[in-house]
Amino acid sequence: MPHYTAPVKDMQFLLHQVMAVRQMDVPGYGDLDRDFTAAILDEAGKFATEVLAPLNPVGDREGCHLENGVVRTPAGFKAAFDAFGAAGWPALDCDPAFGGQGLPYLLGTAAGEIFVAANMAFFMYPGLTHGAYSAIHTHGTDAQKATWLPRLVSCEWTGTMNLTEPHCGTDLGMMRTRAEPQADGTYKITGTKIFISAGEHDLASNIVHLVLAKAPGGGEGTKGISLFIVPKYLVKDDGTLGARNAVSAGKIEEKMGIHGNATCVMNYDGATGYLLGDLHKGMRAMFTMMNEARIGVGVQGYAQGEAAYQNAVAYARDRLQGRAVTGAENPSGPADPLIVHPDIRRALMDQKSFVEGARALTFWGASLIDRAGQGDAAAEGLISLLTPVIKGFQTDKGFEMAVAAQQVFGGHGYIEDWGMSQFVRDARIAMIYEGANGIQALDLVGRKLGQDSGRHIMAFFDILAAECRAHDGDDRMKGFADPLKVASGQVQQAAMFFLQNGIKSPNAALAGSTDFLHMMGHVCLGLMWTRMAKAAYDALEAGDADQAFLEAKIATGRYYMARQLPAIALHLARIETGAEPVMALAADAF
Amino acid sequence: MPHYTAPVKDMQFLLHQVMAVRQMDVPGYGDLDRDFTAAILDEAGKFATEVLAPLNPVGDREGCHLENGVVRTPAGFKAAFDAFGAAGWPALDCDPAFGGQGLPYLLGTAAGEIFVAANMAFFMYPGLTHGAYSAIHTHGTDAQKATWLPRLVSCEWTGTMNLTEPHCGTDLGMMRTRAEPQADGTYKITGTKIFISAGEHDLASNIVHLVLAKAPGGGEGTKGISLFIVPKYLVKDDGTLGARNAVSAGKIEEKMGIHGNATCVMNYDGATGYLLGDLHKGMRAMFTMMNEARIGVGVQGYAQGEAAYQNAVAYARDRLQGRAVTGAENPSGPADPLIVHPDIRRALMDQKSFVEGARALTFWGASLIDRAGQGDAAAEGLISLLTPVIKGFQTDKGFEMAVAAQQVFGGHGYIEDWGMSQFVRDARIAMIYEGANGIQALDLVGRKLGQDSGRHIMAFFDILAAECRAHDGDDRMKGFADPLKVASGQVQQAAMFFLQNGIKSPNAALAGSTDFLHMMGHVCLGLMWTRMAKAAYDALEAGDADQAFLEAKIATGRYYMARQLPAIALHLARIETGAEPVMALAADAF
Repeated sequence: MPHYTAPVKDMQFLLHQVMAVRQMDVPGYGDLDRDFTAAILDEAGKFATEVLAPLNPVGDREGCHLENGVVRTPAGFKAAFDAFGAAGWPALDCDPAFGGQGLPYLLGTAAGEIFVAANMAFFMYPGLTHGAYSAIHTHGTDAQKATWLPRLVSCEWTGTMNLTEPHCGTDLGMMRTRAEPQADGTYKITGTKIFISAGEHDLASNIVHLVLAKAPGGGEGTKGISLFIVPKYLVKDDGTLGARNAVSAGKIEEKMGIHGNATCVMNYDGATGYLLGDLHKGMRAMFTMMNEARIGVGVQGYAQGEAAYQNAVAYARDRLQGRAVTGAENPSGPADPLIVHPDIRRALMDQKSFVEGARALTFWGASLIDRAGQGDAAAEGLISLLTPVIKGFQTDKGFEMAVAAQQVFGGHGYIEDWGMSQFVRDARIAMIYEGANGIQALDLVGRKLGQDSGRHIMAFFDILAAECRAHDGDDRMKGFADPLKVASGQVQQAAMFFLQNGIKSPNAALAGSTDFLHMMGHVCLGLMWTRMAKAAYDALEAGDADQAFLEAKIATGRYYMARQLPAIALHLARIETGAEPVMALAADAF
Repeated sequence: MPHYTAPVKDMQFLLHQVMAVRQMDVPGYGDLDRDFTAAILDEAGKFATEVLAPLNPVGDREGCHLENGVVRTPAGFKAAFDAFGAAGWPALDCDPAFGGQGLPYLLGTAAGEIFVAANMAFFMYPGLTHGAYSAIHTHGTDAQKATWLPRLVSCEWTGTMNLTEPHCGTDLGMMRTRAEPQADGTYKITGTKIFISAGEHDLASNIVHLVLAKAPGGGEGTKGISLFIVPKYLVKDDGTLGARNAVSAGKIEEKMGIHGNATCVMNYDGATGYLLGDLHKGMRAMFTMMNEARIGVGVQGYAQGEAAYQNAVAYARDRLQGRAVTGAENPSGPADPLIVHPDIRRALMDQKSFVEGARALTFWGASLIDRAGQGDAAAEGLISLLTPVIKGFQTDKGFEMAVAAQQVFGGHGYIEDWGMSQFVRDARIAMIYEGANGIQALDLVGRKLGQDSGRHIMAFFDILAAECRAHDGDDRMKGFADPLKVASGQVQQAAMFFLQNGIKSPNAALAGSTDFLHMMGHVCLGLMWTRMAKAAYDALEAGDADQAFLEAKIATGRYYMARQLPAIALHLARIETGAEPVMALAADAF
């Protein structure tokens, strides 16, 4: 069975040596001293290792079952969910006014990585609940907040988001679910939603569905869409549960992975709903959930990579097969461990350098969200630019790295007992949901690049330039600053290509959108490795005791700069071929 | 449910316009006229579409079940297998002396692609049988051939190959299975083999296991290994089945995919075995099967890509979502089909240009095998060089393309009902078995590059140079010959790097082995697209009626040259970083 150990040391290095969070001038960060964050992350790691990770294969094997409208989650999920709530994990970064612990989103993200690496299907239940909490916290009335938030914060109730319908996913303008206004100010919701994660289950006493639907008078397309709170059980004025609402799970899907999470077809048959936020402005409210969910999915990408990597390393150290080409390294044994072989190391270094870089990018992104929450418009603009990168790049690569980790196991990687297949199958969904990665690329190139007259991408380029300048004359950093400078120039060249060609031929930009998403991902990780290397060098010079750890950071970063960052040139070459090769064929010539 | 249509037109284009098989001066090729090959491929396509493809999801869902030593294959497999044998498909390219039809291996490969695309798990049963046929045909005595071949050719009996043991896969020198010589010239085989595809099933009346084992006196390591024929039922002198042999399936594995094929743990408890080929030369005999199996696995790679691609195209034409950025293309409908969107086209063009290029490479490889079978040493050397490329590159990319096809389906791609998950899960094993792709890369760089003083790689470079020269001054071909020339230079530069650095530091070569495998794959596909483009241009000028088909070939080739071939530069950049970044970390620093 696969194991999982929380990478607390790596997280601490990021928080305290790379980001220096206590000096960051973000409210709440001043309290995050080393011992405090270590205590929280260690505790999260303990729960993940002891409770969640052992349930991961159980959830995969058993899946969820729907009988007579009731969904049964895998054995052990209910007890774990209760323990998770009782330990206060769901409340970590929630508003103290509603029972939260008021810690920064950054810390919630770090703890979230630990839980999602240990058991992705399980953590979707509290993860989606957090999204519903955020949407109601941002857009709800005081009365709505008082009714719904405390029990979402405690995970006594859970949340869902309902967007997709059978005939429309990305193109929500075609939505058919209707909301009919009632005399008492409520709405009757009627329609069918699909792919609803945690739509029905036995973990919580109530489920708070956030549902997009069309109310009369809003016009065509997405403009007519509003967001509604539709609980499974109505809530009485005294806060106790009342009648069952007219919403039910019609089916749960057989999926490739995340079997422990119930993916439901939800039928709304005149269910009572409460308008959340402004009428006909539902898309805006839903985006509060969606942007948070996209960062969360970006975490899933590298967290599955991390879990798979840990097991691949253990196997590569343990499995004896062949001899090192430079001479036996385990001469008294029948063969050397796999880890002596260069191609195995290449695969492990690919995984390690990606996962650690993606974690740094995600933590940086989380800190931007904390800043944005305090009204920092520049941070808000930057995280809006980076969200599709964090979601799209990290899930594409996270999946690729889970596959690479599985490959280390040879034939055993294909056998379900070993657990590597589950990491791959679970990681696969992250490339698809919360906006398939092609949509992330479209969002990045078609919307975020030009947003606010291109201010955010220019700010990002300034950050890259400042980073390169900062290491001028620092010989230690040449292997980082030089390639980062080259890569930055290439990303700017691609942006320039879009600017010069995209107006007369939008397809010339969109044909290169996925390539640009990956360029951005690579340059972000190059930036992160540059920062990590600087912090490691400085700590070494300051006499930090953990020399081996810091030297490994530098070596891993050098690997990324030497062997991964050059992918940017390939993406640029592709982008510069423009629309023609991509659009040449008639639709019936495929 | 997914559909499958055999790409007969594409195959005919390759056989008759690109390769011009009838002019090739290979025995048997002269008889392959257009109508004849069309009739065979159409008939194979009919069987694949009507019988095998509908059974593909059935096999995935039901899997195989072991009860009391008997394996039950999925419903419908037995009837399909009988029909497959009755139609003469297993005999297609077998020796007429043993009931075969004597057609070239090339034609067997083309038909094989069709069957494996429709149902990979099913086709493994006859596929492995063909491997056993080849090993016995090459290494067996006349008596052995007479006993075993006719019923392998008819698939009345099936075959297996038994290499792997629990503690050794790649490193067969550690093998523990023993062969004890008996007074009557037979051997008693004792040991446990794992991952034995088709090791036990209910499709055939007998199963002919080819088993590697150590007989006394052979010395240590792989030198002591011999190959044995170990039938499930002993065969009496009159050819009828006798007693059950002491071999049985102890377990079947739960796998990520190919559920329709029984992957068995085989226990040999003093089973009667017959030496095949020379004593202590078993590795050589097994390689006959293994090389054939590696080409077959290379076919699995792109064939799963083809099947997934066909379904992605159909979905992209059918699913209405969003509007073309250049203006509605389906103005009377609620939205445009997915296929109008540049990023969807990019994904489809990636798939199409890979699959058609890989098919061309495989057919070329099959023609080299046909030549080699006639004693052509140059062809033998070249296919020996290309075998790891066909296996490794085509399965890595085939999986990647199946994932890309699944992605086109958005959320539906993750739901098992739609069948895209199965293509991905099935394709995954091809990267692992018959030598994991890292082993293919090691074989290529560590063995094949320098084989016969580097004669084969030099011959390959000559072929590339000749191809570029052949189009000198042909303006139509500039978009092919120019990038092929650049790519060829880069591949040679990588080979030179290995030559200059590999001797003093073998790790410098091995750290780049997977990159070199991919360089070779890309340059081979670049070569194939150059040949295909030339054939298409010539046919257009000759007034070939199928203009749209030929123009699509050229456009698809241009896409590959513009957007895929440049990956070679990235691989070269990685190779030239040498061993240091890959080997820098201590094993305990991972």
